[in-house]
Amino acid sequence: MIAYYSINGKITPAGQATLRLNDLSILRGYGIFDYFLVKAGKPVFIEDYLERFTRSAALLYLEIPQLSGSLEEAIEELILVNGLYEASIRLVLTGGYADDGYTPLRPNLLIMAHPYPDINPLYYTDGITLMSYDFQREIPEVKSINYLTGIRLLGELRRQGAQELLYHDRGLLRESARSNVFILTADGVLATPADKVLLGVTRKKILELAAPLVKTEERDITFEELLTAKEVYLTSTTKGIMPVVKVDHHIVGNGRPGELAPVLQDKFVAFTQTYLEQKK
Amino acid sequence: MIAYYSINGKITPAGQATLRLNDLSILRGYGIFDYFLVKAGKPVFIEDYLERFTRSAALLYLEIPQLSGSLEEAIEELILVNGLYEASIRLVLTGGYADDGYTPLRPNLLIMAHPYPDINPLYYTDGITLMSYDFQREIPEVKSINYLTGIRLLGELRRQGAQELLYHDRGLLRESARSNVFILTADGVLATPADKVLLGVTRKKILELAAPLVKTEERDITFEELLTAKEVYLTSTTKGIMPVVKVDHHIVGNGRPGELAPVLQDKFVAFTQTYLEQKK
Repeated sequence: MIAYYSINGKITPAGQATLRLNDLSILRGYGIFDYFLVKAGKPVFIEDYLERFTRSAALLYLEIPQLSGSLEEAIEELILVNGLYEASIRLVLTGGYADDGYTPLRPNLLIMAHPYPDINPLYYTDGITLMSYDFQREIPEVKSINYLTGIRLLGELRRQGAQELLYHDRGLLRESARSNVFILTADGVLATPADKVLLGVTRKKILELAAPLVKTEERDITFEELLTAKEVYLTSTTKGIMPVVKVDHHIVGNGRPGELAPVLQDKFVAFTQTYLEQKK
Repeated sequence: MIAYYSINGKITPAGQATLRLNDLSILRGYGIFDYFLVKAGKPVFIEDYLERFTRSAALLYLEIPQLSGSLEEAIEELILVNGLYEASIRLVLTGGYADDGYTPLRPNLLIMAHPYPDINPLYYTDGITLMSYDFQREIPEVKSINYLTGIRLLGELRRQGAQELLYHDRGLLRESARSNVFILTADGVLATPADKVLLGVTRKKILELAAPLVKTEERDITFEELLTAKEVYLTSTTKGIMPVVKVDHHIVGNGRPGELAPVLQDKFVAFTQTYLEQKK
């Protein structure tokens, strides 16, 4: 049970945590966020997430409000007052209250705690299906709150029997609505799109952990190359490494999750464990 | 002084009108809105705006909450309790509260009253400068709350000495961040982009009012054609018809507002007056 959120550093009962209607997230969808897991009471890879959050804020010219301590301390305080052991944390920085309904002045900083993500375990053992969609996210390097296209297509995803989207920019793979995408090519290279994608923290860790095992590349990947790949995965904070067995009507590899994904997943779990032990 | 807003049909003191943090506008920028003027206590062209609001909602699969009366009656009630004579009204429909932080369930309907827009009169007598920017709005036919690019560029606009943006999709004119764009071509045709733009209510009225005076066209317009235009305008609910005298470093026509703009503006004012008289 999540009892408290934090608004501009002030611990607030979750039921009373609100924004006034002239906040620029509500009026203009203007804001950024980030999202990370809490394990054993500790925020996982917090340094990476705070670095990205700070970069997103700077790219939208939003100043993170000055708190009494650091942002990391405010997060730790929220973990403590909620008594969180396994959970997730969302940071949101909005354009703030705007009398003119358009010009950011003093951003509002929200820290929200959520339950630990609950994902269908069959997705890992059986793999998932993607629905491709020609779309380039706006200001892709910023983790903005804009999910218009991803959310609008939820019904179409269900109708197609797919679990997630695969955005491509006129044939060049980009990412999923909330995940990065990787392929294991026919000749055994682990590749992920380099440009115009959100630089995921899990993406970065996987690239590092995979490097001793396989050749890795950040580069352009065409839709055609995807169709010849041996394995395809999504990676995200919530999903970890999730195998993809179908894209639209195309079967990936032999239609079953491949062999590299669980190896990388094990390495990722072990790496996370080591990180948490060092944090004690 | 605006004392009240309406949330899901409930009149609420403006200072207490809030949304909880798990609203999908705050978490995911998922929502639509519309905005119109109130003159002589009456919402101007309300039928057009409500038609567009309903269309935007349908395109994002958002159901407008059932109120005790019609949406138009709820707007009239808000005008009455605030004692508005000249003002503006904003409707916002968000994805609503989402426990999973992603899936719309029961949208929240906000009706907010604002002061009548206050625009520098020099913009009409001297004309304004636009800064061009290669950008295609996402789901352009929907009046979504997504203004990431428009707001992010506010500082750059100021530095360039420009008042508004001019979006073009790789050389094809689209619109401004909050306005449509028209040109009066070298051979005297009033033209405005047809596709991938928001269908503005003022745009529609101007096309109708101009038809007896000049040839009008809704079609593709290239950036090159803009540079040979005799006159350029922005149109919007807030601006009416606003002459443009410069785009980046290019002077429009003779660098002064042209002759057609004030003629159209007069017709638009008269048409609005007639509309209001019929509403009495």
